[in-house]
Amino acid sequence: AQESNLIRATLFPGDGIGPEIADSVKKVFNVADVPIEWEEHFVGTEVDPRTQSFLTWESLESVRRNKVGLKGPMATPIGKGHRSLNLTLRKELNLYANVRPCYSLPGYKTKYDDVDLITIRENTEGEYSGLEHQVVRGVVESLKIITRQASLRVAEYAFHYAKTHGRERVSAIHKANIMQKTDGLFLKCCREVAEKYPEITYEEVVIDNCCMMLVKNPSLFDVLVMPNLYGDIISDLCAGLIGGLGLTPSCNIGEGGIALAEAVHGSAPDIAGKNLANPTALLLSAVTMLRHLDLHDKADKIQDAVLKTIAEGKYRTGDLGGNSTTTDFTKAICDHL
Amino acid sequence: AQESNLIRATLFPGDGIGPEIADSVKKVFNVADVPIEWEEHFVGTEVDPRTQSFLTWESLESVRRNKVGLKGPMATPIGKGHRSLNLTLRKELNLYANVRPCYSLPGYKTKYDDVDLITIRENTEGEYSGLEHQVVRGVVESLKIITRQASLRVAEYAFHYAKTHGRERVSAIHKANIMQKTDGLFLKCCREVAEKYPEITYEEVVIDNCCMMLVKNPSLFDVLVMPNLYGDIISDLCAGLIGGLGLTPSCNIGEGGIALAEAVHGSAPDIAGKNLANPTALLLSAVTMLRHLDLHDKADKIQDAVLKTIAEGKYRTGDLGGNSTTTDFTKAICDHL
Ligand SMILES: CC(C)[C@H](C(=O)O)[C@@H](O)C(=O)O
Ligand SMILES: CC(C)[C@H](C(=O)O)[C@@H](O)C(=O)O
Repeated sequence: AQESNLIRATLFPGDGIGPEIADSVKKVFNVADVPIEWEEHFVGTEVDPRTQSFLTWESLESVRRNKVGLKGPMATPIGKGHRSLNLTLRKELNLYANVRPCYSLPGYKTKYDDVDLITIRENTEGEYSGLEHQVVRGVVESLKIITRQASLRVAEYAFHYAKTHGRERVSAIHKANIMQKTDGLFLKCCREVAEKYPEITYEEVVIDNCCMMLVKNPSLFDVLVMPNLYGDIISDLCAGLIGGLGLTPSCNIGEGGIALAEAVHGSAPDIAGKNLANPTALLLSAVTMLRHLDLHDKADKIQDAVLKTIAEGKYRTGDLGGNSTTTDFTKAICDHL
Repeated sequence: AQESNLIRATLFPGDGIGPEIADSVKKVFNVADVPIEWEEHFVGTEVDPRTQSFLTWESLESVRRNKVGLKGPMATPIGKGHRSLNLTLRKELNLYANVRPCYSLPGYKTKYDDVDLITIRENTEGEYSGLEHQVVRGVVESLKIITRQASLRVAEYAFHYAKTHGRERVSAIHKANIMQKTDGLFLKCCREVAEKYPEITYEEVVIDNCCMMLVKNPSLFDVLVMPNLYGDIISDLCAGLIGGLGLTPSCNIGEGGIALAEAVHGSAPDIAGKNLANPTALLLSAVTMLRHLDLHDKADKIQDAVLKTIAEGKYRTGDLGGNSTTTDFTKAICDHL
């Protein structure tokens, strides 16, 4: 009876430090009494012909069924004849929007203390089409594909996000002065959607100028929406402003209401298994998952506990200049719950 | 007799604030006794069919003949049937490398005080091919073209620059994990050239990671070389670190030894003609032109005078938080000569 009230969510602990930081999330969720039951899936050791990657078909089915999941770092094994794990997930689950909230962490000092940005990246097409071609020896080309469907979809998500999260402005980032047709179409779609949200201010900013403004004064921006590669670049730049990928949550939104939250940092094989990893990005990603499930109370509680622990500074992992273990840091968070 | 010792250089004052800041350069060069005779060319008022742009054929011939020039901001008039002025210059003069030294200005405080970077951007191909295409309604594509010839040429320039300017490291910036063929070819060419320069450390950095590292700690980099769009993005990001495009010099290197220095900021029509413009970027660009001509004494003298004037802080234009006129700022520089 108790069990039937639990929400099932897929968990990919991932590689390297993945299992340790996933463990931290499980502990924190337990202590916070989050009504979630994890369905754990590991990356396979052989290529699954149905996914053409080391991801098993069953693990994808699990996300499709549960519609919600959390993913640790996954290192694609080197070799030929299979697809990257991250790209396979995006493609197979049609994860069309990558959402990255990026905010200054109280008490963790960087050069910036006023960051509060949301980057929303189109995650399925653009420069990531995979269409490349050698024209003649020494001349190669890549295709960037922009479609009306995918652009409208991510623009719609961005404006809806802005509206439902009390945000005031959406900036579309582009290089339409050079790529008039592709980025031009992207902007056209953003403008169409913007008209349906008169309460949200809409602006367009050229990517080079956007990067310059971000490093000069990130508070000039609020929600940013953009094609795939620009999103890849700008979301990492923003992460840099607040301390790096070890601190920034990320959530992928897929067709049919799927939400797959993920830590976007690497699998850090050098410190794997040593109880030294920082679980913050995965924890804060798990928080975005809870928000997606409308479990805002639990989300707030956990987010507060993580931020307080970092702010106090007594327990910090090595990447943040401390010398706590993953276990101690996690325990400190649990103590704040 | 005196005249024959002068080096002829083309000067495009450009639009908006262009003529005022060009005036400042002329004054400073006069006081510093720089042996240069300017050949001034203005942007035409009608499209020249030979250039398909508002740039006159004669002005391009002037750069080709003199092999050296300086350019203020140029605003491409809006309308159809002609090419952007900046892109026309790059194409017609085959300006294959855009070099931007970016260093913290003593006394002008930003969040970063340790910036000393050189970005070298491939300037003729890549995402700027201009090849775009609507496949069907709602589906458009842009072609990114990478050639062995252009990649080797800019890589060669970057390593040669590093070697002749006492630099220790060249980082090639790419996204070859996604664009394996195009960025892969670019990297291959960089590696080939790197082998000829064993005294220069060579590394490869993925663009998203590069942006994150730049905002966290720009001193991790030295010389950066990259395809066109990444160069566009990263050079502006770097400019942001030290205060913006009003402070950063730029020089374009073309086939046959052409050097066209330019201020890359806008033409600021709102303050044009009001004696409020900051000539720093154009002055420091003119300095890179002098270095290209091996007039290092003059270059050092002028650069020192500009930096001292800014460092003292008594005369600063509005963009730097002061209230000096262009004339007063220029006079202060001349007084330091
Ligand atoms: C690992 C790489 C393929 C990936 C990307 O470029 O999308 C990463 O940078 C990211 O942002 O998730
Ligand atoms: C104005 C624009 C076409 C240009 C570019 O994208 O190259 C500018 O951003 C630059 O860097 O010179």
